[in-house]
Amino acid sequence: MNERAFIESLKALATDPAARGLADDCAAIEVGGETLVLTHDTMVEGVHTLPGQDSADVAWKLVATNLSDLAAKGAQPIGVLLAHMLGSDDGRFLAGLGEALARFDVPLLGGDTTSGGPPRAWGLTAIGRATHRPVPSRAGARPGDAVWVTGPLGAAMAGFEALRDGTGADSTAFRRPLPCLGEGEALAPLVSAMMDISDGLLLDASRMAEASGVTFALSSADVPIAVPEGRRAEALRWGEDYELLFTLPAGVEPNVSAWRIGDVRERGEAPVLLDGNAPEGPLGYEH
Amino acid sequence: MNERAFIESLKALATDPAARGLADDCAAIEVGGETLVLTHDTMVEGVHTLPGQDSADVAWKLVATNLSDLAAKGAQPIGVLLAHMLGSDDGRFLAGLGEALARFDVPLLGGDTTSGGPPRAWGLTAIGRATHRPVPSRAGARPGDAVWVTGPLGAAMAGFEALRDGTGADSTAFRRPLPCLGEGEALAPLVSAMMDISDGLLLDASRMAEASGVTFALSSADVPIAVPEGRRAEALRWGEDYELLFTLPAGVEPNVSAWRIGDVRERGEAPVLLDGNAPEGPLGYEH
Repeated sequence: MNERAFIESLKALATDPAARGLADDCAAIEVGGETLVLTHDTMVEGVHTLPGQDSADVAWKLVATNLSDLAAKGAQPIGVLLAHMLGSDDGRFLAGLGEALARFDVPLLGGDTTSGGPPRAWGLTAIGRATHRPVPSRAGARPGDAVWVTGPLGAAMAGFEALRDGTGADSTAFRRPLPCLGEGEALAPLVSAMMDISDGLLLDASRMAEASGVTFALSSADVPIAVPEGRRAEALRWGEDYELLFTLPAGVEPNVSAWRIGDVRERGEAPVLLDGNAPEGPLGYEH
Repeated sequence: MNERAFIESLKALATDPAARGLADDCAAIEVGGETLVLTHDTMVEGVHTLPGQDSADVAWKLVATNLSDLAAKGAQPIGVLLAHMLGSDDGRFLAGLGEALARFDVPLLGGDTTSGGPPRAWGLTAIGRATHRPVPSRAGARPGDAVWVTGPLGAAMAGFEALRDGTGADSTAFRRPLPCLGEGEALAPLVSAMMDISDGLLLDASRMAEASGVTFALSSADVPIAVPEGRRAEALRWGEDYELLFTLPAGVEPNVSAWRIGDVRERGEAPVLLDGNAPEGPLGYEH
């Protein structure tokens, strides 16, 4: 059974209509008149980390990536639960965890420690409070909407290469991503669809287009990039920048800094068109 | 850094007063006039499972053990989030997951799948709604209280041995534990302290006594056991039966089937006395 088949089977188990988290990164539940948003992401040693990577950066990224899922829902973080496999570098892990919790002002509510690995795995559950209802989803993009992104892509790719190759160039964007919490909260009342770009613009855009039953027609040259022009195609496929991808109805301007990168059309043959054609090769990074 | 030191360091990070989940299995948060209870437990291949164990049983146990943490808080499950590492036996995992969700009537809200391992790890976050406030904790036992347990101990030990040794004896208690959700909800308004017995009666009793700043004086012969008398000492140290351990003020009778196994005293030298003496050797299973 491959991952897609497994997820489809999970969805069949998730009979509750609120159980959209399997398709949509976050789950939403109604409690006492509030909407809570919940997400859980796992990082696996060697799959999501580089050999010898500083555990402080791993812990930071674990927090940041889960908060990025909340950001895409316009949710304010309430707290996190940690699932930690013990190792020799736990002091560094704690240091990075503490820095991330302080930076994003989110409390550690609880967790679980186990032995196990290598490879070790670390999980984090993040809980947030929706600031706008309905909570933005991936499925709301409509023909005529415009497609936007909150910031340049490719910085994490450059940071990854700097760290991997020890070039001495700045690797911060890869090691210490920043979730767009403020942007997500500001945009939530405006957007027709929103998600964070974790696996590459083209792949995540195709997921949003599939969920919405539309086609995204993107203009390559309009996508802001943080790397030299010669690497534009890669920057559109590399993930981990955690910028927000969102759609706005025609005539609605974003209330945060953002770049317009395309338009939403009636569904054609491909979910994403890049400069008029279906992109070739892998669209992004499938974990 | 050992596990205890790591957890103490985590607690120092958890500056929020609600962050008692690190010491107490579950975290509690206030949302819209309700109290939500959250817990996350991980199972690691080879650490929490037997070689070749049916993944359907692993999935069941993952759900049951997390719901058991909610039971000890008198919480009604709202839903669960799954963190799953993909493997060759995912069909069996899904089967057991579906059976557990149906049996305990709890929806799958979302989750995350990754590659990784061996060893694989599986995590589950369970979210529940408190039915009684304050939510029962481990820290409320007071001198003069009586110590109770909801059912016999040792059944999981016998089931583990049957499965490990292939004796053909019934291994259900080890493979398919049942969280005491009904009992926990009924008891929550009465108890001074409550927790589930996951790591062994003596170890978990010592944790409750330490958290409460008291000593538990237990009577070995009064503890109900599900194995022959010759294995009483082991049954008191083996965990995974997921019965509830709780204390009641003097004169208060339990409103569910339960056994009185001792009394709470002012704190003496040891957190637990068994027939008047501090128990020798390991008190239970430290994961």
